[in-house]
Amino acid sequence: MSERLKNLELTAVEGSDVHVRMLAAPVNPADINMIQGNYGLLPKLPAVGGNEGVGQVVAVGNSVSGLKPGDWVILTSAGLGTWRTEAVFSEEALIQVPKDIPLQSAATLSVNPCTAYRMLMDFEQLQPGDSVIQNASNSGVGQAVIQIASALRLKTINVVRDRPDIQKLRNKLKDLGADYVLTEEELRMPETKAIFKDLPLPRLALNCVGGKSSTELLRHLAPGGTMVTYGGMAKQPVTASVSLLIFKDVKLRGFWLSQWKNNHSPDEFKELILTLCNLIRQGQLTAPTCSEVPLQDYQLALEASMKPFVSSKQILTM
Amino acid sequence: MSERLKNLELTAVEGSDVHVRMLAAPVNPADINMIQGNYGLLPKLPAVGGNEGVGQVVAVGNSVSGLKPGDWVILTSAGLGTWRTEAVFSEEALIQVPKDIPLQSAATLSVNPCTAYRMLMDFEQLQPGDSVIQNASNSGVGQAVIQIASALRLKTINVVRDRPDIQKLRNKLKDLGADYVLTEEELRMPETKAIFKDLPLPRLALNCVGGKSSTELLRHLAPGGTMVTYGGMAKQPVTASVSLLIFKDVKLRGFWLSQWKNNHSPDEFKELILTLCNLIRQGQLTAPTCSEVPLQDYQLALEASMKPFVSSKQILTM
Repeated sequence: MSERLKNLELTAVEGSDVHVRMLAAPVNPADINMIQGNYGLLPKLPAVGGNEGVGQVVAVGNSVSGLKPGDWVILTSAGLGTWRTEAVFSEEALIQVPKDIPLQSAATLSVNPCTAYRMLMDFEQLQPGDSVIQNASNSGVGQAVIQIASALRLKTINVVRDRPDIQKLRNKLKDLGADYVLTEEELRMPETKAIFKDLPLPRLALNCVGGKSSTELLRHLAPGGTMVTYGGMAKQPVTASVSLLIFKDVKLRGFWLSQWKNNHSPDEFKELILTLCNLIRQGQLTAPTCSEVPLQDYQLALEASMKPFVSSKQILTM
Repeated sequence: MSERLKNLELTAVEGSDVHVRMLAAPVNPADINMIQGNYGLLPKLPAVGGNEGVGQVVAVGNSVSGLKPGDWVILTSAGLGTWRTEAVFSEEALIQVPKDIPLQSAATLSVNPCTAYRMLMDFEQLQPGDSVIQNASNSGVGQAVIQIASALRLKTINVVRDRPDIQKLRNKLKDLGADYVLTEEELRMPETKAIFKDLPLPRLALNCVGGKSSTELLRHLAPGGTMVTYGGMAKQPVTASVSLLIFKDVKLRGFWLSQWKNNHSPDEFKELILTLCNLIRQGQLTAPTCSEVPLQDYQLALEASMKPFVSSKQILTM
């Protein structure tokens, strides 16, 4: 991986062009995967890193009708490069977001909360009181899942890796709305079954890890339930016994937001963003814990984002 | 496993009872699994073995209106015991089948062809010209898949284990309507990709093996396609890489006919049986290669059914 800061010439602002001053852009795990070449979508090189962020409109071309200088905008799709101070995007590549939501929420809205929301809505028809189990519960998606599920009155069983300050993490996730927080080891203990006296077996499992962790999620899934894989932090495949598939009718699926956007109209994505902005305004969805890092210190942010047990998301500010 | 022939007293034929003389009943892999205790559904012991077969009605109780002596019947559900000469079943446990279909077809109709038909219909909406890939293609289900797919004008890629008389097997499956017959080793070769110049990538994979064999099926599946697991001959789990699930949107499912019947009405099962009887009458669906064994020699049939590379289904005749 080879990256550096570089001065680029901005193209003239014409027609449907929108000149945007970037305000803040996070460093997501997928951004690192993309730079390393381990991703389903790779931009032509040389490319600007970063796939989401929030900016402010500086100027618009003649044919731009939906945006005006001063508006806050986020990007509709990945691969456009957000780790920069200024950019010229086409109007269709932008979605306006309200300026009364926190900057960190706006900067981190278009990937993780969208992924969390769609996974909760699109695979199983869950009703209030139903339960959802997930691993990597402290990730950006994990924290969004806890909050959105709580807003939907779903119960969450949240699996995390054990760590020295585990009680602090338990408290943090419970404050976000988590019903249960368990370490991977606790999930394996027979006593854990007692949880399911108080709540129904999860019909949905969300897997960002793979390997043994996903095997454990499957073991607790309700018959006929679905496990959705959206990440592979353990770099191990997902494995299911034949009897689980046949007799327990467990369904294994994957989710990738870029694919979802390919299969849905831009208006559907805008609607999703507005739904999430409403949750943010109602105090039901907050940004993950963030560390703001000035763009010129991007190296520090990249390094911090790749450390094990990262507990805060690096946000580049411009 | 402990089994023997035993004389049982028949209950009196009253009300909705139907006295049936069994004519023929196959030995299926699931029957063996059930006797060994490795099955999702286990009868109370002592129990009569066998889960499908055809019989002839001898006498009916007063309230039986849909059946009369002489009719051919098959069983609606597993676990009732078909490896016997005579039995009294309730009318609801029976479905009449036409007497103009071959006895071996009637005896083997209610499990394998039903499984094959439902897997081809219920997971992906396939159109004529679409392709399906399967392993264990010489099994009872495998042969039914080849024939039903051919009747539906679907192309089949059929994977089998290599064996000394492989050319004979290729010819046999091609005679049934198979488009391609490949050994597991051939499927791994890069040259195999040439097949997909002539036909679309399979949107449906049918897996009766698990382990490496299912990994190979997944590798050839079209993006967004489904692999349905209905057996686990290799006694190895099904494994999928995280990127296959996320970026290729591959879906992993299981199929179990008993579950399907639980979720559908008896009339829907009768309709399925009649659909298959029509295919049999039109010469589009034949019974798998069978070896008929008299009931008293059941030990020979059980042993033969458990040998590796069994090329014919054992059918007990009464």
